[in-house]
Amino acid sequence: MTETGPYELGENRYGKSRIRLVTVRRGPERHDLRDMTVAVSLEGDFEAVHTAGDNAGVIATDTMKNTVYAFARDRLTASPDAFGLELAKHFAGYPVVERATVDIAEHGWSRVTSDGSEAADAFVRSGELTRLATITVAHSGAAEVQAGVDDLTVMKTTKSAFKGFDRDGLTTLRDTDDRLMATKVRATWGYRSPAADATFDFDAAWERARATLLRSFANHFSPSVQASIWIMGTHILDADDSIDWVRMVLPNLHHWIVDLAPFGLDNPGEVFVSTTEPHGLIDATIHRRGT
Amino acid sequence: MTETGPYELGENRYGKSRIRLVTVRRGPERHDLRDMTVAVSLEGDFEAVHTAGDNAGVIATDTMKNTVYAFARDRLTASPDAFGLELAKHFAGYPVVERATVDIAEHGWSRVTSDGSEAADAFVRSGELTRLATITVAHSGAAEVQAGVDDLTVMKTTKSAFKGFDRDGLTTLRDTDDRLMATKVRATWGYRSPAADATFDFDAAWERARATLLRSFANHFSPSVQASIWIMGTHILDADDSIDWVRMVLPNLHHWIVDLAPFGLDNPGEVFVSTTEPHGLIDATIHRRGT
Amino acid sequence: MTETGPYELGENRYGKSRIRLVTVRRGPERHDLRDMTVAVSLEGDFEAVHTAGDNAGVIATDTMKNTVYAFARDRLTASPDAFGLELAKHFAGYPVVERATVDIAEHGWSRVTSDGSEAADAFVRSGELTRLATITVAHSGAAEVQAGVDDLTVMKTTKSAFKGFDRDGLTTLRDTDDRLMATKVRATWGYRSPAADATFDFDAAWERARATLLRSFANHFSPSVQASIWIMGTHILDADDSIDWVRMVLPNLHHWIVDLAPFGLDNPGEVFVSTTEPHGLIDATIHRRGT
Amino acid sequence: MTETGPYELGENRYGKSRIRLVTVRRGPERHDLRDMTVAVSLEGDFEAVHTAGDNAGVIATDTMKNTVYAFARDRLTASPDAFGLELAKHFAGYPVVERATVDIAEHGWSRVTSDGSEAADAFVRSGELTRLATITVAHSGAAEVQAGVDDLTVMKTTKSAFKGFDRDGLTTLRDTDDRLMATKVRATWGYRSPAADATFDFDAAWERARATLLRSFANHFSPSVQASIWIMGTHILDADDSIDWVRMVLPNLHHWIVDLAPFGLDNPGEVFVSTTEPHGLIDATIHRRGT
Repeated sequence: MTETGPYELGENRYGKSRIRLVTVRRGPERHDLRDMTVAVSLEGDFEAVHTAGDNAGVIATDTMKNTVYAFARDRLTASPDAFGLELAKHFAGYPVVERATVDIAEHGWSRVTSDGSEAADAFVRSGELTRLATITVAHSGAAEVQAGVDDLTVMKTTKSAFKGFDRDGLTTLRDTDDRLMATKVRATWGYRSPAADATFDFDAAWERARATLLRSFANHFSPSVQASIWIMGTHILDADDSIDWVRMVLPNLHHWIVDLAPFGLDNPGEVFVSTTEPHGLIDATIHRRGT
Repeated sequence: MTETGPYELGENRYGKSRIRLVTVRRGPERHDLRDMTVAVSLEGDFEAVHTAGDNAGVIATDTMKNTVYAFARDRLTASPDAFGLELAKHFAGYPVVERATVDIAEHGWSRVTSDGSEAADAFVRSGELTRLATITVAHSGAAEVQAGVDDLTVMKTTKSAFKGFDRDGLTTLRDTDDRLMATKVRATWGYRSPAADATFDFDAAWERARATLLRSFANHFSPSVQASIWIMGTHILDADDSIDWVRMVLPNLHHWIVDLAPFGLDNPGEVFVSTTEPHGLIDATIHRRGT
Repeated sequence: MTETGPYELGENRYGKSRIRLVTVRRGPERHDLRDMTVAVSLEGDFEAVHTAGDNAGVIATDTMKNTVYAFARDRLTASPDAFGLELAKHFAGYPVVERATVDIAEHGWSRVTSDGSEAADAFVRSGELTRLATITVAHSGAAEVQAGVDDLTVMKTTKSAFKGFDRDGLTTLRDTDDRLMATKVRATWGYRSPAADATFDFDAAWERARATLLRSFANHFSPSVQASIWIMGTHILDADDSIDWVRMVLPNLHHWIVDLAPFGLDNPGEVFVSTTEPHGLIDATIHRRGT
Repeated sequence: MTETGPYELGENRYGKSRIRLVTVRRGPERHDLRDMTVAVSLEGDFEAVHTAGDNAGVIATDTMKNTVYAFARDRLTASPDAFGLELAKHFAGYPVVERATVDIAEHGWSRVTSDGSEAADAFVRSGELTRLATITVAHSGAAEVQAGVDDLTVMKTTKSAFKGFDRDGLTTLRDTDDRLMATKVRATWGYRSPAADATFDFDAAWERARATLLRSFANHFSPSVQASIWIMGTHILDADDSIDWVRMVLPNLHHWIVDLAPFGLDNPGEVFVSTTEPHGLIDATIHRRGT
């Protein structure tokens, strides 16, 4: 053990971020394209690395990058979650590692379609959302898998109110029964531990959660962004027993109605200015009772 | 006329950029959502504004913003091009204005669909592309309309080569018969002047050009990005007599094949590193002979 | 208490982000300019807000924004930390609030200087770094203050090595005795609780930490980014008893030496390609033993 | 000549963008650090490349990148302008090239200073501005050099008015005698052709223009952004006979005074909300009479 005087190393982790990976599977009929940004992060016994400049046992972050590309050669055959499990188990197997985390953001591409048929080898990037998977594996082998969506920008043009909130001398916002509600959804959820292995159908679970989230977003009446998180989150939990908890971090992307009265025009909820600064930010987690 | 000594005012223009406009049309059955970023720019006799600090005749950029929102109340009923024509004609009518330009970037939203049906009032932003329209109207009333797409990221996983280029002592790139070709398309095109009025079906022309571009991208064999621009551009011109010219500015978003040999693995065109820096940048315009 | 069936509300917080505040103090001799981006976030008893859509007790995020601007009128007279304390205490005083957090990023502006003298009322934004302050106040009144720097991009052109790390079949990086080390520093530190009140000289402490960090960065020999964090962090702790812990999150912004041999040129550590993807990411906290 | 049917190739250019170059000169006493982003663009006889897919004569953009790094080995010894001249002359020498353009953005780094002394080999990136140089060389050898600054964000807290502009039914902005004026300066200027060779002191000229711009910004009274461009531009021309013209593209980054009356507070020009959307955009060029 190193003598570190009056100081101690606290929480620490290190890894490689922004590993940009594209794979093409060249089938006889058509190609399949995958596009991911991967990050690897390790925790473990790295005290001497910090305090004594001793790199023994350090897995270079360059090696992490190599590993991602090498594993992509033949182990990226299913979901990003399953790929991340392979990677995280590998890294957790190093002697000094106590916990390995792999974060994957998968970027969607769809086939170019023309005259009703899909191209075999031409793709267009769909910017509607980013699929997330975060896999953590302990040296003991215990694994946790979280999945999610990011960058999913949605808007309700009605069925959203905000009223009955606290008023004091610093309050100028009026109660409203009908407002636009727009947000860029970042939602993540955790799978029950039995689910966290490669035999689980991560693709089906992810698609179910995504579809439930959107359906719920469209259908519910929102008294506040907080209540929307509760409603959408409980719907996702209702739809899938394998999900233990759901977290959403939702900016409230305000759309202010434009006052057209100076120009002799009314504005019955038709013309809005879209803003990004400042924005509300609502963050809440919902879990099954007792988990 | 102002005495400006040894200096002259050269080219100049001013206006308002990044006007963020969202409209909701509240029909009995369902809502329609539009989302645009608008810029207005004016050229004219603004010499004294610059050289003498005399603001007589200046249309404040704040007024331009107001005008966009006011016109959106009841004149944004069809294409962005038609809306831009209304705006540009209005601004070109001010006495000091010689030429007014309106730039519109329309951001796509699609309806949330669930269980096969479309939501009436809930939308998801589709990040696949941005629709462009640039309208210029002279004080005389003469109008020009350009349209286009931006941010359309596409990839061909085969049918792309690059060989036979010049080699000298600074060349290390090898000839290739088969490479990935990825680009983020910015394509613009100009409509013939008779087309540039509000009776023209700008939506149909835009959709035709977009579909042609994608079909052509998927189908052609590319010997270079330059040749791809020619091929896709001439296809767009073939498909629509109302288009006079097409310009494309295409970054070549290189995907480098990863050398997996150090890890005892082959890599037959399957694993790539996606890069953005540096990138090729190819810019070419194709026009009908004689225009 | 609400009946929430099989689900429970877990961690939650809400607030307003990206409140852009600029103040000008108009002294007789000269103006002083401040520029901040403020975020407010509250935790407390918001269960019914989520589960029952009941907004009683909710402080609207719009009210938070108003409060920031109103308090800026006459309470932003010293450090961002002191301003944040005023704000956080105010928000923590609402009955339903258990904990209020105020995050401030202060953007630097310096006076325009010409011919050796400083302008009284003209400023240039200095992009060298962003100053951070995060203040948390509990309903009980207990306060914590963290400060820091962000976006401080620095480079050592020597005195940085990386060798002796683990090697296996996936390792290709070579040991090096001399490399460029570049990073974009995000460093935060926590003040001892007695320090966390408005009489503490937050400006002096921040300036001391900033100067120590830069001096240490310049002077030390780095065997790894991890060791650099330890070295710089302990120097900051050495320099100021009022600081309990230091955390740094440092990307390793790799600069790869260019192989000029194909062009008949050597490259003795002179020509590099600067990259941002992928990058190492090192995160560690150092604290006083026993805290 | 290729048969291209009813279409013609119009304006076209191609090249490599975002070449990220860092150099370290290792002197006996201290190191010197340079950091540039370089782009190369060529125009010439590239018709068959586009219309026939014939790459004969094409200089690969990968070769352009190699050239930048190879030339940086021993020809980047002075200003970015001189380096760009070397590069552009080289590229203009290829048989098919009619015109080569090199764009350089130089990013500033300053030495870390501590206890009054400057580090020999540690640097901090200064984000105050980016230095620009654009060099164009024709196959004939004729050269043009433009220089400039970008990303220079400045603010005047007084001596800025805007009044006397046109008013109509769409105008709501009030006349003001005193407002904040903030902008992010992009200014470029062209050197007279005799200046455009490597013996010209580009560094001194650039520094003179930069200093003049800032001094003028601080000192003048601004009746409008347009007039500010005229005033600052003519000052730059006054200060340097070797500059033929100056162009500025200035966003007007509006700072709106916050209405604090609802909270019982006045606001005598002290508290502002800083905005980026929408913004004015003013673009004007000033040249010497007769040039």
